[in-house]
Amino acid sequence: MKSARSLQQLAVPVCRHHRHLPPSGRSVGIIGAGFSKGQVCVCVCSCTTPFRAHLEIRPGSDWVFVFTVCVQPRDGVERGPDLIRAAGLRDKLQGQGCAVKDYGNLAFEEFANDEPVGRVKNVRSVGSANQRLSEAVQAVKRDGHTSVMLGGDHSLAIGSIHGHSAAVGELSVVWVDAHADINTPLTSPTGNIHGQPLSYVLYELQSKIPVLPNFSWIKPCVSAKDLVYIGLRDVDPSEHHLLKLLGVKVFSMTEVDQLGVSKVMEETCDYLSARVKKPIHLSYDIDAIDPSVTPATGTPVVGGLSYREGVYISEHLSQTGLLSAVDLVEVNPLRGRTEQDVQSTVHTAVDVLLGCFGRRREGNHSPSHRVPEP
Amino acid sequence: MKSARSLQQLAVPVCRHHRHLPPSGRSVGIIGAGFSKGQVCVCVCSCTTPFRAHLEIRPGSDWVFVFTVCVQPRDGVERGPDLIRAAGLRDKLQGQGCAVKDYGNLAFEEFANDEPVGRVKNVRSVGSANQRLSEAVQAVKRDGHTSVMLGGDHSLAIGSIHGHSAAVGELSVVWVDAHADINTPLTSPTGNIHGQPLSYVLYELQSKIPVLPNFSWIKPCVSAKDLVYIGLRDVDPSEHHLLKLLGVKVFSMTEVDQLGVSKVMEETCDYLSARVKKPIHLSYDIDAIDPSVTPATGTPVVGGLSYREGVYISEHLSQTGLLSAVDLVEVNPLRGRTEQDVQSTVHTAVDVLLGCFGRRREGNHSPSHRVPEP
Amino acid sequence: MKSARSLQQLAVPVCRHHRHLPPSGRSVGIIGAGFSKGQVCVCVCSCTTPFRAHLEIRPGSDWVFVFTVCVQPRDGVERGPDLIRAAGLRDKLQGQGCAVKDYGNLAFEEFANDEPVGRVKNVRSVGSANQRLSEAVQAVKRDGHTSVMLGGDHSLAIGSIHGHSAAVGELSVVWVDAHADINTPLTSPTGNIHGQPLSYVLYELQSKIPVLPNFSWIKPCVSAKDLVYIGLRDVDPSEHHLLKLLGVKVFSMTEVDQLGVSKVMEETCDYLSARVKKPIHLSYDIDAIDPSVTPATGTPVVGGLSYREGVYISEHLSQTGLLSAVDLVEVNPLRGRTEQDVQSTVHTAVDVLLGCFGRRREGNHSPSHRVPEP
Repeated sequence: MKSARSLQQLAVPVCRHHRHLPPSGRSVGIIGAGFSKGQVCVCVCSCTTPFRAHLEIRPGSDWVFVFTVCVQPRDGVERGPDLIRAAGLRDKLQGQGCAVKDYGNLAFEEFANDEPVGRVKNVRSVGSANQRLSEAVQAVKRDGHTSVMLGGDHSLAIGSIHGHSAAVGELSVVWVDAHADINTPLTSPTGNIHGQPLSYVLYELQSKIPVLPNFSWIKPCVSAKDLVYIGLRDVDPSEHHLLKLLGVKVFSMTEVDQLGVSKVMEETCDYLSARVKKPIHLSYDIDAIDPSVTPATGTPVVGGLSYREGVYISEHLSQTGLLSAVDLVEVNPLRGRTEQDVQSTVHTAVDVLLGCFGRRREGNHSPSHRVPEP
Repeated sequence: MKSARSLQQLAVPVCRHHRHLPPSGRSVGIIGAGFSKGQVCVCVCSCTTPFRAHLEIRPGSDWVFVFTVCVQPRDGVERGPDLIRAAGLRDKLQGQGCAVKDYGNLAFEEFANDEPVGRVKNVRSVGSANQRLSEAVQAVKRDGHTSVMLGGDHSLAIGSIHGHSAAVGELSVVWVDAHADINTPLTSPTGNIHGQPLSYVLYELQSKIPVLPNFSWIKPCVSAKDLVYIGLRDVDPSEHHLLKLLGVKVFSMTEVDQLGVSKVMEETCDYLSARVKKPIHLSYDIDAIDPSVTPATGTPVVGGLSYREGVYISEHLSQTGLLSAVDLVEVNPLRGRTEQDVQSTVHTAVDVLLGCFGRRREGNHSPSHRVPEP
Repeated sequence: MKSARSLQQLAVPVCRHHRHLPPSGRSVGIIGAGFSKGQVCVCVCSCTTPFRAHLEIRPGSDWVFVFTVCVQPRDGVERGPDLIRAAGLRDKLQGQGCAVKDYGNLAFEEFANDEPVGRVKNVRSVGSANQRLSEAVQAVKRDGHTSVMLGGDHSLAIGSIHGHSAAVGELSVVWVDAHADINTPLTSPTGNIHGQPLSYVLYELQSKIPVLPNFSWIKPCVSAKDLVYIGLRDVDPSEHHLLKLLGVKVFSMTEVDQLGVSKVMEETCDYLSARVKKPIHLSYDIDAIDPSVTPATGTPVVGGLSYREGVYISEHLSQTGLLSAVDLVEVNPLRGRTEQDVQSTVHTAVDVLLGCFGRRREGNHSPSHRVPEP
């Protein structure tokens, strides 16, 4: 029986930046960050929205009886970490050869009077929670793990990126999201900080950020040239202006359609490694993926990544050997209409994370595996 | 803060035919044409069809109780224009910098005795309605707008193309559809004129068209070499024969799968501009898109364009700067099983239209936008 | 009217291995093989699985009432052949110019005491059924038809490939599946033979197969270098090890994402015809396609082929002119939640089969077709 492995490997082009780390070399530190105050929920009771549960009985074409069950969405994103854990993240990571340490869920300080500052909501809570998270990420990195932060809302990227950079120095950031999340406190149309995190950590935007309570500890730590977006399709005009001003590398859904996800990931790696290869911080908002796959999230937008594109991205980054921290945010079970909506969202989140740590759809086997003979 | 805009623009290949018109340069004239007599509806009450509402309770494998609610589809496509308007078309176009004038809904003449001529149904009504529409499109073009005709069924393309050509001369036609709509009155298996419009406007088919009441005003005005199809997957044998005889450029779903939508659009532009660049007439049947996205339409066919491919097409054509008239047809709310089916269909139609007028998924901002400082 | 057919044909690149057989040259022999003992069903009653029927009423966020209808899946895959026939396979094949002979459903011997041998279940039944099927396929091939075997479970590939090879000699095998189905009786985690068929027919694995009752008639007949997989995404570690040892050509979903289905099919044809062009055996498990399209199957796995990719594969292989036998397996109506689930699965199976025999989405017409004139 001759081996044709060399042929096999030639057949599929491999990104030239890949180191193909053995899965067994990976060690993962999980932080639960069930924080939801970077987004303030909006009640959407109208039966015209696509995410309302309803029964519709039309026994003929002459009349229609619609029974609408209004579901008032509220917080829920704080349940993300435990749902992702319950879907077997730890066991599955270990099953593919990773060492896993779970640092548990962070406890966040409550602020009785967290009045808006200008338009910005929950400033003190968000500032304090992110400081706590930054410290936790630094501890995970000191322990030698790849950090996995399970959100919670995307405002948590402030602390996660800050802590990661404090531990390892300069970073590349790959931001996978339907939204750009780069509003400043002064451009934000909603005041929700989960739409602003990048403005606090980018060097280039420091002059645009006002003084905010509990935000003084934040030091900008990422350069606009080290940031790549994938999946954008709902970008505010001020965000678009900032992206153009800063010359940020953006693969919106138009570019994903134009180039294909495979070329997008190749160009992402080319772009990020054209200078020095820095540790990669992957900040993955589950709403980057299409609402038909991951509906249980706060701000779904049609026209997103397919499940396959979603896991391709993490599988590809995994193979660079540079992935040093991952955020997986905005899984919100209260935004699913059905249990199946929630399960599909959570399992997709788990598969994205498994892809970060060596899972390959062609399969994996340990080097010690032997084929039994009769 | 240095700008890297030049780098950014290099990264994504741009079709060489694009002029990148500023969105603010666009002016849109909307015509509502809620006409449905180009298709005669068929009652489909059988519970084996995929579009019936039913509850199915199977408490074990031994027995099955199926409660089928029969919904009798009838006309409904005449409600398309108002649904598309109600989804905010005008405001959204204005929000992206377009000047918009709504010419309202056309009133069509009723014919008491519109008996079939041969197999062809509703001949007098269809002929008269299209004459009315042709005049309306000519008025919109005289006023200097890009014409947007909201159908209604696809028989309306006769008047829309005729009026467009009467106003501006020779046209290119991009026909986005699951069906070829090129049957002659003598080859049509159903007699519905919404499956025949192209046969009336193509120079090359003039000898195949019999004399029909209320059709004498129509002058053929499009050359087969100026026609491109995208999305075909349900083509009658006679239509296939005609397409081959005429050498029409066809990107069926096979070619979309083979080349990808990006290459399809590049080749479409190459093909249409290889000779003289003519104004483009985009005739977009919503059934080109997959029924999982746009189910509320009369003749859905599996295996269609994704939402993303659907809007990519209009975004790409928008950037040629040549788009001069658009038809958006066959949105039929009575063919949706649920309110969500209808909303998804209508919102996709709106997004296709926004793509025609400069919307980009990476975002837009006005040149006058300023970034606020604290 | 001048013909531009030459231009048209130039525009779309055609695989250099294609012979473009006229559809009328095809003759099809259908064998029904409603056999289900290669898989032993598992009861999955938990409401956390994605395939349970349930109603969920949540009139507020404070309480949730879930009414779960447990559906105990059991055999059902034996109903596949008749469902596929009832969806009009024969008429549709004839409609596209094929001669069709239906050999009816095979009758399989029942074994009262078919106790497991080691971990392997239903050994005697599976061995006997496949011997019967092998003979039937040989008869179909002797009669000069392309064999179409409608399963039933994928253990039937043993007899189908064996009979095909006994009739025509050396084969290429294209295996379209979410799973590798290459476990040996000694590596199988479940003991179900539908996860093992390839291990019995590959020359290279003969030394790994123990003696099993009713299996002595099987002679290995396929070389690992003549096997290509498409669609893999759920591969056991021992299977992955075997695939690497044997150097089998695999296009997992990662490669489908990376290359696109068009390039995958081109490379498949290149690979298989690099040496001698052998008759192709296409073994198509409907679970290769995504569960959102073909949910009514026993072991669905997320992230599968789209409907379009699924039919592209068979359309492309059809054009090689080398397709000599086809298996279409694992359609299981009892695994659908709704009638629509079942219909979507069955109709996709039919479309895959039509693609094998010359259906093209751009349409077809017979050479004798004439365009009528008034």
